[in-house]
Amino acid sequence: MSETTLTTTAQALSPMTGRRVIDPDTYFDHNKAPSNLQWAHTSISEFLQKQPSDQRVVLITSGGTTVPLENNTVRFVDNFSAGTRGSCSAEQFLALGYAVIFVYREKSLQPFNRHYSESKSGLLSYLEVSSSDGQVRVKSEWQDRIKRDLIMFQNYMAGNKLLMVNFTTLSDYLFLLREVSLLLAPLGPRAMFYLAAAVSDFFIPSYSMAEHKIQSGDGDLTLRMNQVPKFLSPLVKKWAPECFVVSFKLETDPDLLGPKARHALGKYGHQVVIANMLDTRKWQVWLFTREEQAPHVIQISQEQLAAGVDIEQDLSIELARRHQAYVTRHSK
Amino acid sequence: MSETTLTTTAQALSPMTGRRVIDPDTYFDHNKAPSNLQWAHTSISEFLQKQPSDQRVVLITSGGTTVPLENNTVRFVDNFSAGTRGSCSAEQFLALGYAVIFVYREKSLQPFNRHYSESKSGLLSYLEVSSSDGQVRVKSEWQDRIKRDLIMFQNYMAGNKLLMVNFTTLSDYLFLLREVSLLLAPLGPRAMFYLAAAVSDFFIPSYSMAEHKIQSGDGDLTLRMNQVPKFLSPLVKKWAPECFVVSFKLETDPDLLGPKARHALGKYGHQVVIANMLDTRKWQVWLFTREEQAPHVIQISQEQLAAGVDIEQDLSIELARRHQAYVTRHSK
Repeated sequence: MSETTLTTTAQALSPMTGRRVIDPDTYFDHNKAPSNLQWAHTSISEFLQKQPSDQRVVLITSGGTTVPLENNTVRFVDNFSAGTRGSCSAEQFLALGYAVIFVYREKSLQPFNRHYSESKSGLLSYLEVSSSDGQVRVKSEWQDRIKRDLIMFQNYMAGNKLLMVNFTTLSDYLFLLREVSLLLAPLGPRAMFYLAAAVSDFFIPSYSMAEHKIQSGDGDLTLRMNQVPKFLSPLVKKWAPECFVVSFKLETDPDLLGPKARHALGKYGHQVVIANMLDTRKWQVWLFTREEQAPHVIQISQEQLAAGVDIEQDLSIELARRHQAYVTRHSK
Repeated sequence: MSETTLTTTAQALSPMTGRRVIDPDTYFDHNKAPSNLQWAHTSISEFLQKQPSDQRVVLITSGGTTVPLENNTVRFVDNFSAGTRGSCSAEQFLALGYAVIFVYREKSLQPFNRHYSESKSGLLSYLEVSSSDGQVRVKSEWQDRIKRDLIMFQNYMAGNKLLMVNFTTLSDYLFLLREVSLLLAPLGPRAMFYLAAAVSDFFIPSYSMAEHKIQSGDGDLTLRMNQVPKFLSPLVKKWAPECFVVSFKLETDPDLLGPKARHALGKYGHQVVIANMLDTRKWQVWLFTREEQAPHVIQISQEQLAAGVDIEQDLSIELARRHQAYVTRHSK
């Protein structure tokens, strides 16, 4: 019986002279920039130029990244993330007066549109042909809600308070993250990073990937994946050292939550880790900082959850408050 | 340096007494049915009861399946498939008078809705607030097209000619495939199977899966995946032996296309394999049968492609013609 081995550790690491986890810089040398990188650079630059000099700006990343298993991609590893946290938080930060750069996984949830993405039968299920004038319009039961979201969405877009940039793969995401970081760096403390995207921890380097679709043959498949370098490190230390950085830890094992959050703060030296559990993330999060011994708990009740209250409202208010204090502290 | 090994071949196969590729029946014993299985059973039964006695029925499967890497799923392997082939084919078979059971990956393209799923800003980008009556309606440039699709969609649904059933994981898909097959079997030659979904070839059995999110630690990740049993075999031989079955082969290496299509026909004994290449699948497919030496080529020109012609139109007409001949042959 054959066993298909996609890549060996030795092959995968050959250009890195034996290091197990490669440099972030090396990663960029060995992977291809996404096709929208130049567009993103120009759009973000123009977006920032249009902001008042004291405007708070937040970068929100949202959705999961994919890791291709083949160069001609048929299969990929994906991270679970509908993009609820990120898209909902974007609405909240806009309401708090922030300008929002929303970097999201294509087809994940988007601010304002997110409420109309879960229907089983798509766009058409919200529409009807009017019996009076024959025009296609939104069904009456959806009119008020969609009108409110449509007007907010259009106003934020027209007022240059919301910019949306999309990605699909891990590589797309990392190139865009570096680009936005370098463009936000000059804003110093005024810029917040809210890194809610679910980024893959493992990848197969492009040069050691299978060229064609992996054949199933009659045996098992062994995939060896390399660890993705931790990009929070260059982000905090080099790309945007004066900005206010919030990262996320999603776990399924409650015993790991605190230790992993504290470890990240110690290792990267950024401002906040939001820890959350896969099962309870919609109503409970823990906010960790280097200064505080105990985490700050944010939670909403089951009644609030059922009534449609988003925990991101309290979370964004708390972060905006801490961001304000950070700006004040660093402006002296 | 540590290396995380998710599962060993020995562990993964322990309940199968040493066989590398498990029985389809064993698969169902060891995996959990999807939550919509009972609903699907009832809905499909009722749908079929409402059809005239000579109604042609086609099962169309569409979109890719996911394979979870953890029991508390954060990561999964996915197969590339937007669902274009399946959703477009559903429209074509409806136009040809078929009743369509559309089994699709959640969030993949759906018939009629598929034209309005690629917009970067979602539902809201198709809408405007009318300046005359303040109602939210479809923008004038989209009125005609959306109206046509909306009316067709509503008519097919109201007329019991289209039923939609959704899945996400490989396991969901396989349970639903068996269920629909057993329900379609009594129709004999009148039922067509059009298996366009991109189904994973490899999986990690639930009982040998990591319980929690895999930790990245400081090393590589090795994933050992078992081969998925070939479900076309029980489908053709046991579940629905008299039906007309069309399977698909998607490849990226052109040299494998013919040999793999012929191998599948020989192995499973079904009626048609549609072979296609990842790069050219939108304008060229090859139709293989056991009876014919050379494949029947279906293709459209680049001009047709650019003008919005779907190759699925010619493909469905050709298959309906062959299905008609099959029905006639088996009714004597």
